[in-house]
Amino acid sequence: MDSFSDLGFARVDTSREARQGAPEAIVAEGKTPEEISAIATALLEAGSGSVLVTRADKAAREAVLALGDDAVEDERARLAWIARGVPEAKGLVTIVSGGTSDGPVVREAQVRAELLGTEVIVHRDAGVAGLHRLEPALPDLKRADCVVVVAGWDAALASVVGGIVAAPVIAVPTSTGYGAAFGGVSALLAMLTSCAAGVAVVNIDDGFGAGTIAARIARQSAK
Amino acid sequence: MDSFSDLGFARVDTSREARQGAPEAIVAEGKTPEEISAIATALLEAGSGSVLVTRADKAAREAVLALGDDAVEDERARLAWIARGVPEAKGLVTIVSGGTSDGPVVREAQVRAELLGTEVIVHRDAGVAGLHRLEPALPDLKRADCVVVVAGWDAALASVVGGIVAAPVIAVPTSTGYGAAFGGVSALLAMLTSCAAGVAVVNIDDGFGAGTIAARIARQSAK
Amino acid sequence: MDSFSDLGFARVDTSREARQGAPEAIVAEGKTPEEISAIATALLEAGSGSVLVTRADKAAREAVLALGDDAVEDERARLAWIARGVPEAKGLVTIVSGGTSDGPVVREAQVRAELLGTEVIVHRDAGVAGLHRLEPALPDLKRADCVVVVAGWDAALASVVGGIVAAPVIAVPTSTGYGAAFGGVSALLAMLTSCAAGVAVVNIDDGFGAGTIAARIARQSAK
Amino acid sequence: MDSFSDLGFARVDTSREARQGAPEAIVAEGKTPEEISAIATALLEAGSGSVLVTRADKAAREAVLALGDDAVEDERARLAWIARGVPEAKGLVTIVSGGTSDGPVVREAQVRAELLGTEVIVHRDAGVAGLHRLEPALPDLKRADCVVVVAGWDAALASVVGGIVAAPVIAVPTSTGYGAAFGGVSALLAMLTSCAAGVAVVNIDDGFGAGTIAARIARQSAK
Amino acid sequence: MDSFSDLGFARVDTSREARQGAPEAIVAEGKTPEEISAIATALLEAGSGSVLVTRADKAAREAVLALGDDAVEDERARLAWIARGVPEAKGLVTIVSGGTSDGPVVREAQVRAELLGTEVIVHRDAGVAGLHRLEPALPDLKRADCVVVVAGWDAALASVVGGIVAAPVIAVPTSTGYGAAFGGVSALLAMLTSCAAGVAVVNIDDGFGAGTIAARIARQSAK
Amino acid sequence: MDSFSDLGFARVDTSREARQGAPEAIVAEGKTPEEISAIATALLEAGSGSVLVTRADKAAREAVLALGDDAVEDERARLAWIARGVPEAKGLVTIVSGGTSDGPVVREAQVRAELLGTEVIVHRDAGVAGLHRLEPALPDLKRADCVVVVAGWDAALASVVGGIVAAPVIAVPTSTGYGAAFGGVSALLAMLTSCAAGVAVVNIDDGFGAGTIAARIARQSAK
Amino acid sequence: MDSFSDLGFARVDTSREARQGAPEAIVAEGKTPEEISAIATALLEAGSGSVLVTRADKAAREAVLALGDDAVEDERARLAWIARGVPEAKGLVTIVSGGTSDGPVVREAQVRAELLGTEVIVHRDAGVAGLHRLEPALPDLKRADCVVVVAGWDAALASVVGGIVAAPVIAVPTSTGYGAAFGGVSALLAMLTSCAAGVAVVNIDDGFGAGTIAARIARQSAK
Amino acid sequence: MDSFSDLGFARVDTSREARQGAPEAIVAEGKTPEEISAIATALLEAGSGSVLVTRADKAAREAVLALGDDAVEDERARLAWIARGVPEAKGLVTIVSGGTSDGPVVREAQVRAELLGTEVIVHRDAGVAGLHRLEPALPDLKRADCVVVVAGWDAALASVVGGIVAAPVIAVPTSTGYGAAFGGVSALLAMLTSCAAGVAVVNIDDGFGAGTIAARIARQSAK
Repeated sequence: MDSFSDLGFARVDTSREARQGAPEAIVAEGKTPEEISAIATALLEAGSGSVLVTRADKAAREAVLALGDDAVEDERARLAWIARGVPEAKGLVTIVSGGTSDGPVVREAQVRAELLGTEVIVHRDAGVAGLHRLEPALPDLKRADCVVVVAGWDAALASVVGGIVAAPVIAVPTSTGYGAAFGGVSALLAMLTSCAAGVAVVNIDDGFGAGTIAARIARQSAK
Repeated sequence: MDSFSDLGFARVDTSREARQGAPEAIVAEGKTPEEISAIATALLEAGSGSVLVTRADKAAREAVLALGDDAVEDERARLAWIARGVPEAKGLVTIVSGGTSDGPVVREAQVRAELLGTEVIVHRDAGVAGLHRLEPALPDLKRADCVVVVAGWDAALASVVGGIVAAPVIAVPTSTGYGAAFGGVSALLAMLTSCAAGVAVVNIDDGFGAGTIAARIARQSAK
Repeated sequence: MDSFSDLGFARVDTSREARQGAPEAIVAEGKTPEEISAIATALLEAGSGSVLVTRADKAAREAVLALGDDAVEDERARLAWIARGVPEAKGLVTIVSGGTSDGPVVREAQVRAELLGTEVIVHRDAGVAGLHRLEPALPDLKRADCVVVVAGWDAALASVVGGIVAAPVIAVPTSTGYGAAFGGVSALLAMLTSCAAGVAVVNIDDGFGAGTIAARIARQSAK
Repeated sequence: MDSFSDLGFARVDTSREARQGAPEAIVAEGKTPEEISAIATALLEAGSGSVLVTRADKAAREAVLALGDDAVEDERARLAWIARGVPEAKGLVTIVSGGTSDGPVVREAQVRAELLGTEVIVHRDAGVAGLHRLEPALPDLKRADCVVVVAGWDAALASVVGGIVAAPVIAVPTSTGYGAAFGGVSALLAMLTSCAAGVAVVNIDDGFGAGTIAARIARQSAK
Repeated sequence: MDSFSDLGFARVDTSREARQGAPEAIVAEGKTPEEISAIATALLEAGSGSVLVTRADKAAREAVLALGDDAVEDERARLAWIARGVPEAKGLVTIVSGGTSDGPVVREAQVRAELLGTEVIVHRDAGVAGLHRLEPALPDLKRADCVVVVAGWDAALASVVGGIVAAPVIAVPTSTGYGAAFGGVSALLAMLTSCAAGVAVVNIDDGFGAGTIAARIARQSAK
Repeated sequence: MDSFSDLGFARVDTSREARQGAPEAIVAEGKTPEEISAIATALLEAGSGSVLVTRADKAAREAVLALGDDAVEDERARLAWIARGVPEAKGLVTIVSGGTSDGPVVREAQVRAELLGTEVIVHRDAGVAGLHRLEPALPDLKRADCVVVVAGWDAALASVVGGIVAAPVIAVPTSTGYGAAFGGVSALLAMLTSCAAGVAVVNIDDGFGAGTIAARIARQSAK
Repeated sequence: MDSFSDLGFARVDTSREARQGAPEAIVAEGKTPEEISAIATALLEAGSGSVLVTRADKAAREAVLALGDDAVEDERARLAWIARGVPEAKGLVTIVSGGTSDGPVVREAQVRAELLGTEVIVHRDAGVAGLHRLEPALPDLKRADCVVVVAGWDAALASVVGGIVAAPVIAVPTSTGYGAAFGGVSALLAMLTSCAAGVAVVNIDDGFGAGTIAARIARQSAK
Repeated sequence: MDSFSDLGFARVDTSREARQGAPEAIVAEGKTPEEISAIATALLEAGSGSVLVTRADKAAREAVLALGDDAVEDERARLAWIARGVPEAKGLVTIVSGGTSDGPVVREAQVRAELLGTEVIVHRDAGVAGLHRLEPALPDLKRADCVVVVAGWDAALASVVGGIVAAPVIAVPTSTGYGAAFGGVSALLAMLTSCAAGVAVVNIDDGFGAGTIAARIARQSAK
């Protein structure tokens, strides 16, 4: 039976994990530390296996850290989370990124997928401008149940990887780049029009979304 | 007879309340505290039932608070107002919002509608991702004279509510969200193309505009 | 109890009129004449008071005309409809338009509102470039329960009317104009940012949507 | 070993099916019937299990039909294909669409997924404006290995479905709608910013892409 | 004979005033105070009647003020200027603005036009939402040699004024407004598509450009 | 006293010529030949010195030609007009265009300005890619009361001319060009951001608007 | 000495070939066959080594073919040309394209470069989705004086090639693709933000421009 | 043999200089000073002739300065670099810019090209509004092996220079300007649609990219 916890300013969807296998998460932007703390508490009290707060500034992260000694933060990726009942890992997600600056988005995807119970391997900075750097990642790309490509600028890596692997590819455009990169729009458009079939795209900088669907795919694909 | 008060830098429309049932309001952005104070004073002296200042930073709000002990502010919604002759409440406006972060816009709509003389009920955080959270709002949605839907991201709540209620629906896109949310543009476009008929839309984050038209509809619909 | 009629290619929402006071309508674009005919028949058999087909080319209109001698078409407005149980008219909607070319959208709004059971008065070609042409419309604008403004180009008429009347104003941007009119985008943006409060906007060329919400407002406002 | 067939005007990737489990397909736009015929022939000669031509006008489809008695076309979906060695079906893809006009895109996704060897169930016209029409689809949505949502306009269906199911959701924005639908851009943006996590998006009207990734997910998820 | 003063980082067009009747001006953004000071000095030494620095922050303005006791600044309009040989005023420019927040742009247009040698009359805050406020400006609008309309939001004032006056109208969109005002884009589009003929438009917030062309028109029109 | 002629579908502003020195004109797009004929007749009967129909296809032009033996058409510029009382020519407008393809827009500006009573000289195809081609136009540019620059693509001609002449410059972006010319948007943006001061811009392809304001400037500037 | 031939409707830049090594070319769109014929004749009479007409429909091509037995056309690339004095070939341009549909743009670049006097080698359909197809092109890419990459969709080929070769790379986005390809905008943005340094971009579908600059680079680089 | 240095967070492409004649550079944005320091060290240790860090704030520049006494910074251009083995200069690149504010981008292009081993001459502030200021640059423009045009606003300088010189022209749009300059978009579009053939464009503010391709062209063109 679907349920929620009514905090007045928020109706926390406490049945989402049971319904969909992934607990509700909290985007910190636009919320006060008090609100974040209250929502996180409601989720944990309702039995969520984990709570993940994304796009969290210092105050938001501190609100989470104050909730327990098991709270963890990642400053650069602007994350904070508490994991109390992560499912046993099933399946493999391989994440490959175009450049060093994509790091925080990679990390967000990784943490989310791990909290949902899947193994994650990361290969950073394998951009197309020096394609030979992709080679060490090939074995992990080929044995993955789901591949996540994180890239900004022209995001050409999505097509290159999408032309190699047989697994489903989830592409995450990032806002790295300047000028005509338009805050990730160019990467988004390039990924949507990838000449490789079998690539699907999430929102700009949305490591969270990519981690969610990748973990779902990987877990149900694992034998 | 239409009139105005000429302050040099501003021509305050002192006959608007008589003409249209709603006094001129003040957008604080682009105005100095002194200008805001002078315009508010002119409106009150001309007999406005209330003065509402929107998008007001601290200095702007303080300029209003200094005008009388009956001045009120709301920091998070960036509002300040003085109510000296609010009409007796007629009709019911029900506001429903998609997420916690839409709170300030909800508040702006609520305050505006109440100052124009209508009852307002608010249901927060009833987003489509957990649709069962909308159920407690259904009775208030169905008995409303006008429904206001406040939502960012993809604003799917507008179509869901628009497919349920028989009252006119005013949709307010908000700038919550990141990436392809494009500061509220995605929500705006989604609301304009809602698959539910009978939905009309105001500007992004324009709780004020929604409150104005909703109050007009509700007041004239009340028996 | 909500119900629908399953035609395979369509699930016709036969309970919409009971639920929301307005029957489902049919956008002809993207549907074959056979599909339009089948959906219209399903609606009429389920007891809809009327069926309205919008954006209908010749073939689509003929499919409707073949459904009964009481079917009516409007070539220029690309409409076809059958009215078998229109509610008694309540309330008044006054439509004012900016130019002659806005005629088809005006007509779509008018037909929809009349089919939902409200009186409609139309004043055409009262654009701001010759503002004195608006004067004959003023009495009908001031006594209306809801005003609909239909305009393309810069849509300045919306603000002018919105600054005069006390009734709710529904603004319909049209795709008339060339160059920077951008197919109605300029009119849409202007209406969304109208300096007059109390204006809400529907989709470009969406006379249907405007007629729907205007009729709802007018009917519930009528004494 | 990767290989290709060099036709001069084209280098047909004859090893794609072996490498990625899905043969190269042919977008007809921009190609002559002769080119389409030659590419299709090269693929079949190289042992492709099937050849699918998308966005094919009459001449393009006839070029395919001339290649063998086992060629099939779908006029409305602008498809033509030849299936000579489709893998045994594994897994289930459930497709749900918002409206009748989305039919051709639904069909493209269905044919592609079936040619790649997966079972496909389709539920049409379950748009959010009458949400009760979604109910009959719920069992098939919940037991699917992958869900595909096809919708135009504001594409609210993606969030509604995304909030219900536990399977990965692939969303396909369509170009249905007019005005601010902007040829599918509004649907695209709404799907990218869906408030439901676990939704990934393909290009506008790209039933082919959705079918490709959905079949991959479904096949590898099947037990 | 055309000439310039070569400062290394800049080639100051010292013959522009002789060639075109208006000296080169300095946009402060992107220039250091030292550069601004050097360019201004070069212009004055070459005999420019005046030097005007626009979009000048405090440091930029101070650099100008240090050039002589006759230097003047306007903080809010971000201007600084020195006038040593302004031509005798000829002709009349009437500026009318939509709202209080347009003040800085109005001021920039006024100062520029006055420095070029024309009389300027300003009517502020005559927005369309309360059209009766425009009446006191009518005599000055009708006797002007050139009218400048400064407005943000939907800029409806441009069409209203453009439908009344017989003089050329120069429209300046401003970046006032939020949401779908898009930093002045909506006002720009509305002005470009004004339903009143005889309106020409300058860049967003470009009081300088409007003042330049308006002064040219007014001076050559004066008898 | 302002007046209009009420045709039902149109309210023809018969006092515009008296009020503003330029009669109302007719954009043919969106109007039937019958409507065009009726509006033109109403204007002529009310004493308009001329009637100009723009963007007129063959049927629209024939409707005008049928109104009198003095009717004239220009197929390529899609114009038709009747001149019965053009004011004596005063002032000089010099039009310069970037390329051959800008011809129809040049012609529209020319006809409009001549009908309003001003002399017009045209220099075609003086684009910046071969700047020496501009030289023969220099004398006419320098003695003009108003200069009109018509250009598509990057519209660099506007800045070049704007840097030379002392007269006001009206710039008309045209929709010539392909790809990133975006139907005239690039030319429009370039003209709005011209590095030459004193340039004002009208709508894309709006020769009519340019002719209107140019004639006003030229007539009032003539001694 | 710079010169031009004045045809009234056009000022043909007859000195361009002497000045810049490449004769003026003719974009057929917006010009009549008579105008094209006259411009081409003027160029040939002034001694141009060749005349190239781009974006030429059948009538435009026939106008060229009528000019001499040595006239040549390419229907699919919409080209017609006459070559009477092509310089001896110097240098090598290698063109590589992403897909079959890019053929016409490839051809336009090839013809232009050859007419300017350079050797051109073409490798078609080497898209990133099957990267092994690029291998046969590698020797020609590495020995080229200038590389031209022609690609639509996400144009990932530009970055892949740009990361391999040492020669300057000119990238041409094409309008192939649908949906979010946006008529070449996505390819354009991707190429502008290529993660490979040393790539410069021309207009969408602008094979002509690419051929021009590539030939210049190749000719001056040849030893 | 292609190689890279794996730093965990980055895979430094240490073979790029050998492969393409230009070492990998470092965009500082999105990287920590520690990461920048490590990447620069890896490049130098692998034998790169130089290391260039662009878009570097103070902390990033200090990280480079700490790497050796031969490190250099340019605060305004946000650059830091170390040159240990710059190739002997070959060829000439002439850079011309539109205004003083384009200085930092000019500088980035200059430093990059010099580090790759080419002579660079710079002419600043030769904007089209005072075209005579371009004359002193003509000799250097005409003898250059490659010309770089750096301009913001409407970027008309690109077409003017492109119509004069015979060398390849690389155009760099800059983000100087306000309003409709849209952060460099107008300049970008204008440059892409330049009416002068033989112009290719790099990203907005991308002095680095322009310097890279210009140096390649100049070096291979030098005799």
